[in-house]
Amino acid sequence: MNVGTEWLVDAEGCSAELLRDIDEVRVVCAEVIAELGLRVVGEPMWHQFPRPGGVTGLYLLTESHLACHTFPETGLATFNLYCCRPRPAFAWEERLRALLGASRVTVRIAARGAEAEARGAECETRAGQYSAKLEIQPSFESEVSDSTSAREVSGL
Amino acid sequence: MNVGTEWLVDAEGCSAELLRDIDEVRVVCAEVIAELGLRVVGEPMWHQFPRPGGVTGLYLLTESHLACHTFPETGLATFNLYCCRPRPAFAWEERLRALLGASRVTVRIAARGAEAEARGAECETRAGQYSAKLEIQPSFESEVSDSTSAREVSGL
Repeated sequence: MNVGTEWLVDAEGCSAELLRDIDEVRVVCAEVIAELGLRVVGEPMWHQFPRPGGVTGLYLLTESHLACHTFPETGLATFNLYCCRPRPAFAWEERLRALLGASRVTVRIAARGAEAEARGAECETRAGQYSAKLEIQPSFESEVSDSTSAREVSGL
Repeated sequence: MNVGTEWLVDAEGCSAELLRDIDEVRVVCAEVIAELGLRVVGEPMWHQFPRPGGVTGLYLLTESHLACHTFPETGLATFNLYCCRPRPAFAWEERLRALLGASRVTVRIAARGAEAEARGAECETRAGQYSAKLEIQPSFESEVSDSTSAREVSGL
């Protein structure tokens, strides 16, 4: 049985200074939570690693969890959003460009639970000329966008 | 740039009673942390949902994070282990069978960072007759095992 959906989001080309600033990264998480109507359980955990390191944030949600890690030294921010209830898609690319200066955002979607099994699922990407589907593959779906490619976001 | 590896582990057929027991689920996380030499930052967050619900555990690690959700009503436990340093493989199947009574364990491996992009990575599964590789696919790798199939764990 499928018990949820997880979004794995990798944002490249972000501003190193923004990625070191917990308050700036927290804004992204706050937007995700507010826009999707997620409910936080307890206090989120945040940790600032010593320079040149970034920050980590973890939110326990009634819907599962949201995790964020930033890597200023490589301009990268990664997010995991795991929801055990259907949720609409968040505008990851648009918001990560605006809030963290990302130049490229990859969103992968993984079903959790029985749909994760390799017996009847798929692995799909939609990114310019790289478009393919493998019928027997697990339930991963990937989207990559950068400033030069058209992009289509799939609503869930 | 690749900034880490994430293991997405879905264990099916677990004992509902064990999945409702924070102490039992905590043992799994404690084993993962001890065996892989992970370092916990602050206090882990644990939450027990009202029956028939399960539990959620979140650990902030210097290596990134470990998250666990259980769904007793469907016999499912899911784990995310995100490590920004190379780590050996944990014996997910063996330990989840022993500790939670899992009958089937799926382990998917996702590279985080630039290797997540769809331009040159792969999506692979190794599970009995379902074996395939798609050269242009994103960096997901999946393993499924159940009591009737041979299993090979890839060391990272």
